[in-house]
Amino acid sequence: MSEPITFLSDYGLGDDFVGVCHAVMARIAPQSRVIDLSHGVPRHDVRSGALILRRALPYCASGVHLAVVDPEVGGERAAIALRTAEEDRILVGPDNGLLSLAARRFGGAIEAVDISHSPLRLEPTSKTFHGRDLFAPVAAYLASGTVLAAAGEPIDPDEIVQIDMPLAGAEGDELVAHAIGFDRFGNVTLDLEHDELAGFGLKLGHRVRVLGQDAVYATTFADVQAGQLLIYEDAYRTLALAVNRGSAAELLGLELDGEVRISV
Amino acid sequence: MSEPITFLSDYGLGDDFVGVCHAVMARIAPQSRVIDLSHGVPRHDVRSGALILRRALPYCASGVHLAVVDPEVGGERAAIALRTAEEDRILVGPDNGLLSLAARRFGGAIEAVDISHSPLRLEPTSKTFHGRDLFAPVAAYLASGTVLAAAGEPIDPDEIVQIDMPLAGAEGDELVAHAIGFDRFGNVTLDLEHDELAGFGLKLGHRVRVLGQDAVYATTFADVQAGQLLIYEDAYRTLALAVNRGSAAELLGLELDGEVRISV
Amino acid sequence: MSEPITFLSDYGLGDDFVGVCHAVMARIAPQSRVIDLSHGVPRHDVRSGALILRRALPYCASGVHLAVVDPEVGGERAAIALRTAEEDRILVGPDNGLLSLAARRFGGAIEAVDISHSPLRLEPTSKTFHGRDLFAPVAAYLASGTVLAAAGEPIDPDEIVQIDMPLAGAEGDELVAHAIGFDRFGNVTLDLEHDELAGFGLKLGHRVRVLGQDAVYATTFADVQAGQLLIYEDAYRTLALAVNRGSAAELLGLELDGEVRISV
Repeated sequence: MSEPITFLSDYGLGDDFVGVCHAVMARIAPQSRVIDLSHGVPRHDVRSGALILRRALPYCASGVHLAVVDPEVGGERAAIALRTAEEDRILVGPDNGLLSLAARRFGGAIEAVDISHSPLRLEPTSKTFHGRDLFAPVAAYLASGTVLAAAGEPIDPDEIVQIDMPLAGAEGDELVAHAIGFDRFGNVTLDLEHDELAGFGLKLGHRVRVLGQDAVYATTFADVQAGQLLIYEDAYRTLALAVNRGSAAELLGLELDGEVRISV
Repeated sequence: MSEPITFLSDYGLGDDFVGVCHAVMARIAPQSRVIDLSHGVPRHDVRSGALILRRALPYCASGVHLAVVDPEVGGERAAIALRTAEEDRILVGPDNGLLSLAARRFGGAIEAVDISHSPLRLEPTSKTFHGRDLFAPVAAYLASGTVLAAAGEPIDPDEIVQIDMPLAGAEGDELVAHAIGFDRFGNVTLDLEHDELAGFGLKLGHRVRVLGQDAVYATTFADVQAGQLLIYEDAYRTLALAVNRGSAAELLGLELDGEVRISV
Repeated sequence: MSEPITFLSDYGLGDDFVGVCHAVMARIAPQSRVIDLSHGVPRHDVRSGALILRRALPYCASGVHLAVVDPEVGGERAAIALRTAEEDRILVGPDNGLLSLAARRFGGAIEAVDISHSPLRLEPTSKTFHGRDLFAPVAAYLASGTVLAAAGEPIDPDEIVQIDMPLAGAEGDELVAHAIGFDRFGNVTLDLEHDELAGFGLKLGHRVRVLGQDAVYATTFADVQAGQLLIYEDAYRTLALAVNRGSAAELLGLELDGEVRISV
């Protein structure tokens, strides 16, 4: 058996960190294909890594999904591998919430092990490079057919560290969402999927109020005039705010997790 | 059947765009090797992408060649897949000229389909991420043995959008070339191949006039003095202008597609 | 036979250099897996490349190890392929010292060939892109089972260009090491491995003098106070100097290869 492995990290590509993790995996699982999802997660930004993993995994074949954004490496945080309820995906990484959003997208973890002292790790295990010495070898063995139970000590899947995300929902005749991401153009990602807005009765071309400002529910920037606020669906079917040739973040004075009240 | 796929884009490696396209291809064509030619094409620079694809493809095994530099994604441009007259190469990408220079290097397109509504695309298809939802899946199915005719609606291969490049040639006793690329050192790529200059009777070490300036036809920078203009053959057998420890673009006041008259 | 190939260079990922080398290798050795160790070696920095290759190779499966950091490409330097005494590793690259430190880690070269005019190279061979035309094809043929003797002219393995590194060692009751690398935080890599310091009788928590300054032999930065100098083992079991929330390079006024005297 040789399952594919996906690999996400904040290591960047300037050094040999990513390359050496690939080398370790190729040695243990020479038949497994390794797909780099990205190594450009902002350094130590666990939540951004978790959001990227959650949105990317539905496009990946089921297999082993390795993720390393690990500001507390060498400290007290545990290292884990887990199996999801749906599709039998295996996720491997630090127990700091990085895996939690992706796991929930597949029904949550139904089996989990603490791999901090895994018999599969490389010896000697460094204090600072667990990607190479712990996570990559465990991921590679699991992709080669080693069972999860052999990778570490069983733990309660419900005890895995979760990332708390604000929860969007209706309040009276308002929809309350949050700003969960910004790009460099000032576009704002909301914690609201396409279906939730549709459920609220909103249709393309409708005018809405966003934090008291007029906005249009549009398909693309080109549908509105320069300076106009719009709400649109991005490539991952998540809703976002933008200003045509401007910055929605600036116009609305939004900060991370800031509340975005939408009313018709 | 599992053919290799090459992949060129302007996505960069900071985000998960390239990684998710890889994931989509690996899922559909798990046996196909995917080679990243480059994802560093300047953003939205279709012509640079077309030139890179043209010069790189002769070094690639025949197979499926995916290219995505797509400033009009979501707009009116068509999406295409084509087969070249020579070597049976399959090229997949937006119909904005990106594939045209590489296709001509292999005798032009002899079969082409419009894949804008391909039955092979992912559903729902986003408005903005056709790399993931359209081009990558079509490329992967074609690499796995799906025939071109099954990927879209047949179109006239002669109707594919072409990039107009200036045409180098002799005018009297002058050779008229053009500046088709610049690097950050001010070196200037010409639309002139090694054989064309040889056909003009020029031999290494000869002195020539370039836009009225003295220049030497040399092998390397080290063959001329500091500040001296030279014309030389670059690693892709294309001719280029340089100034040893200086900028040829600046010395000659050249802009993109600017005419470069060479006389002996 | 299809052995894995590792690939290290200073080409960066902005252009198509790395991609085209991959394409050339995939054409010759379609079954060989190619692992990018890094393409972020500082441009033309042969010694940094040699140090990265030396530390990465023990994590790589035995096979063909391609490395290209080649400031004198097109000049007089030879191009070589060699076999190491231990583990039968094949190293391919310019003969400028780049391969020398990694070769010594595996018992030195016991067989070597000059591949400058290898029958395996691409024709025509460019003057400036030997990665594509010479090193990549030779590496790929060697990974596919071509014997070393068929790749070039035999040379004396003892004549391969070596990188001179300063030599750490004991002098009386002092240990004399050298600053062989710096990171952007001012942490200093020493030419001293964990076992050498242990052999000197030093144990974790001990106080030492480093260039006349008080320091602690610690596991992590967090073990010492802000501003305190520490000596610690990095992820490659090499010793390094750091100042918690400061710069060891600055505190000690160290330059490359500068002597670092350590006493208990």
